[in-house]
Amino acid sequence: MGLLDQLDHIFYPRTIAVVGASANPEKLGFMCMANLLEAGFKGRIYPVNPDLAELFGLRAYPSLRAIPGEVDLAIVTIPAELTVSAIEECVAKGVKGAIMFGGGFREVGTEVGLHLQDRIRDIANKGALKIIGPNSLGVINPGANLNATFQMTFNSLKAGNVAVAAQSGGICAYIVHALTNHNVDISKVISMGNRCNLDFDEVVTYLAEDEETRVIALYVEGLEQPKQLMNVARQVVKRKPIVVCKGGRGEDSNRATLSHTGVLAGKYEVYKAAFTQAGIIVANNLTELVDVAKALAYQPPAAGNRVAIFSIQAGSGIVMADRCRELSLRLADFSPATKKKLRQLASPLYPIDNPVDIGPGTTAQREMVEIAFQDDGVDAVTAAAVYHPITMELIRAVIDVSKNYKKPITMCLDSPGGAAYAELNALEESHIPTYPLPERAVTGLAGLVRYGDILRSFC
Amino acid sequence: MGLLDQLDHIFYPRTIAVVGASANPEKLGFMCMANLLEAGFKGRIYPVNPDLAELFGLRAYPSLRAIPGEVDLAIVTIPAELTVSAIEECVAKGVKGAIMFGGGFREVGTEVGLHLQDRIRDIANKGALKIIGPNSLGVINPGANLNATFQMTFNSLKAGNVAVAAQSGGICAYIVHALTNHNVDISKVISMGNRCNLDFDEVVTYLAEDEETRVIALYVEGLEQPKQLMNVARQVVKRKPIVVCKGGRGEDSNRATLSHTGVLAGKYEVYKAAFTQAGIIVANNLTELVDVAKALAYQPPAAGNRVAIFSIQAGSGIVMADRCRELSLRLADFSPATKKKLRQLASPLYPIDNPVDIGPGTTAQREMVEIAFQDDGVDAVTAAAVYHPITMELIRAVIDVSKNYKKPITMCLDSPGGAAYAELNALEESHIPTYPLPERAVTGLAGLVRYGDILRSFC
Repeated sequence: MGLLDQLDHIFYPRTIAVVGASANPEKLGFMCMANLLEAGFKGRIYPVNPDLAELFGLRAYPSLRAIPGEVDLAIVTIPAELTVSAIEECVAKGVKGAIMFGGGFREVGTEVGLHLQDRIRDIANKGALKIIGPNSLGVINPGANLNATFQMTFNSLKAGNVAVAAQSGGICAYIVHALTNHNVDISKVISMGNRCNLDFDEVVTYLAEDEETRVIALYVEGLEQPKQLMNVARQVVKRKPIVVCKGGRGEDSNRATLSHTGVLAGKYEVYKAAFTQAGIIVANNLTELVDVAKALAYQPPAAGNRVAIFSIQAGSGIVMADRCRELSLRLADFSPATKKKLRQLASPLYPIDNPVDIGPGTTAQREMVEIAFQDDGVDAVTAAAVYHPITMELIRAVIDVSKNYKKPITMCLDSPGGAAYAELNALEESHIPTYPLPERAVTGLAGLVRYGDILRSFC
Repeated sequence: MGLLDQLDHIFYPRTIAVVGASANPEKLGFMCMANLLEAGFKGRIYPVNPDLAELFGLRAYPSLRAIPGEVDLAIVTIPAELTVSAIEECVAKGVKGAIMFGGGFREVGTEVGLHLQDRIRDIANKGALKIIGPNSLGVINPGANLNATFQMTFNSLKAGNVAVAAQSGGICAYIVHALTNHNVDISKVISMGNRCNLDFDEVVTYLAEDEETRVIALYVEGLEQPKQLMNVARQVVKRKPIVVCKGGRGEDSNRATLSHTGVLAGKYEVYKAAFTQAGIIVANNLTELVDVAKALAYQPPAAGNRVAIFSIQAGSGIVMADRCRELSLRLADFSPATKKKLRQLASPLYPIDNPVDIGPGTTAQREMVEIAFQDDGVDAVTAAAVYHPITMELIRAVIDVSKNYKKPITMCLDSPGGAAYAELNALEESHIPTYPLPERAVTGLAGLVRYGDILRSFC
């Protein structure tokens, strides 16, 4: 069985065994059972615990081998010292994939931990078993109602098009929560943990083939064999974008990284250069990772870096222009014909240089935005509206016009206390990603510009 | 009447006249009337419009002079070409302050606009009238139920301790909305506009005396006389912090800034140095402005830059350590006694070096956090929890321990779909500011460290 088939058994299991399933709500073996059920997993679930006859109304089994049918995925929730025999049982049973939640392996930095991890790795490799972890939060596939983690907030995730693979389970959760809070839904999540025999390059290979995934977002602390990921990425980015945030950037944090997932993180600048050369978009922090992933999930890449900015209030355009320069985007020089038409349409009080300050009174906002989309000197558009009746016309204009063009657009629209819910929804149903502050709409757009560059360089 | 008294009449008016009050919901003169009423202004409101006998059930007056009593604040909502006589009437009536919403002055860059602004400025100066604007969104004072703007989302603002003064009305709205969405309430808001005879230094002078204001947040595009603000700031920062975000940073955006509020923005690096020398904390963007203002609104300044980091999941600590280094904060070296105690209390699996990965199973979280607060080598603390039952103990520990110490703390706690509402509230009612991503909790903490530095340098 090849890698893709193997990971298919993990992301789309027909049957799941929970080794260490528990009736104690404080145990991971309880939380995980509850999540599988609550998220609505449609296949069979086998609780494995020699002390229980049943759990959550399901028949419990004393061991993996006692389970009558095939097991696609085993979730191992027992203490580290008991995992060797559990993994041996997985192999004996012909289980395709195992998720290992617990710590106590390479990340603790002891001989014992390292040895334990080496043992389970060797057993798994011999038995053609792929292990997620150990020291992992698990995997999620909302499209298959699969929440194979101990994080209950993932039960209600809707299926979307952004995949998240993160070395840390905590950061995994932060990224997924931030994405969903920003109306970005998820295709797959995988908390990599110690990566004992499944590494980022393999996961990216899988996600490249996954039809539900449009964008791959990574949080990486350190890689033993960075070239493997870079080589895979160079091919994958021709088909879908990869954006990465690198954690563990210096002396201090490396000390923590070492003990976290068991690998020295390495110099940030070296990683940054390697990612960039491989066509991976580098986000400087998690906020940028979320903003760029959102733009890539909603909009096409740009054909160049020349940006047109529209705002109803000049200040927003100014902040956007500042951020454009910071991210090496150019303010588009409008053609003489564009300038002439904009001047005719705009209120005489307002400047039609880029950024275009439309002003609140202008009735021809749709035409003004359309002229910018039509200008050959414009590769991408961003627009800013404060939530207020006088900015609604710009929102309508952007929705109506942008769908007729392949140039990407992002939008800033704030929503005090969620007041702009309907407007945000209307924009995002039209695939226009919105951001609460002007600078962040430009961060998103810069991701689309960067991915356009990558496509031109790599294809 | 001195400046402070004059601005008191604007922020705490007993009577307001709305010049150009309108029954047409699309007019600013309608929106402003509606907002004054909706926000619950307790004083008298005089609609001024020669064509109306009454508006919103209030008697309307044909002119300012026809109003029987005194007028503290006039809100001028009429077109630019009619404003000269309106300002003359204000002076004749003895009005103390005027807010001018409309554009068509210096910001349009024409002779006519410039001349018009000079005329109203001269009239106002002779008549001891302070003008907010022109080209302003207005002012807000939630504590006095005053929403003297045309932004209806400000009607429900609660009184808080952060004052916002912004050159742009749009950015004003973005900042206020972002702050309130992050549970930071507002003491005063002032949209400066063209600053025809009221500038930032005067507003900062006023806010320094304002008992309701603990933090002053500024958005500045350009200043004709930067030294005035810097001189004032040097004194004010001894009593309360000022944080600024500068817009209009380069060639491209300066073009827009020039036409926006009528002043060349100037080189960013020069401004940044000047702000820093004056003890003003510089935020690189609006997100940082919000994050730093939030921390300053909730927590005391730090006595130094040595930070202790606690997390339940190691990844969060690593991202926080990265951000510490980026912002020149140091990871505290724990004393040998602290290390020994932490080692005794911590699960043997988890590292107690800083960042401290508490791990989910530890029962002694309160003691561990307290030991860090007690260590003389620790100036400030930040902690990260993913929303999950296993992190609740850390939240309780942080709430219980931090109140006994003067060292500042910030916290990262995500809230998918608002799920962590109760926990966020519990933290913030205990004055612990929370942030949705780990890096942002450190941005906030860095503001507290920076303000501590400023107090030591300036006092």
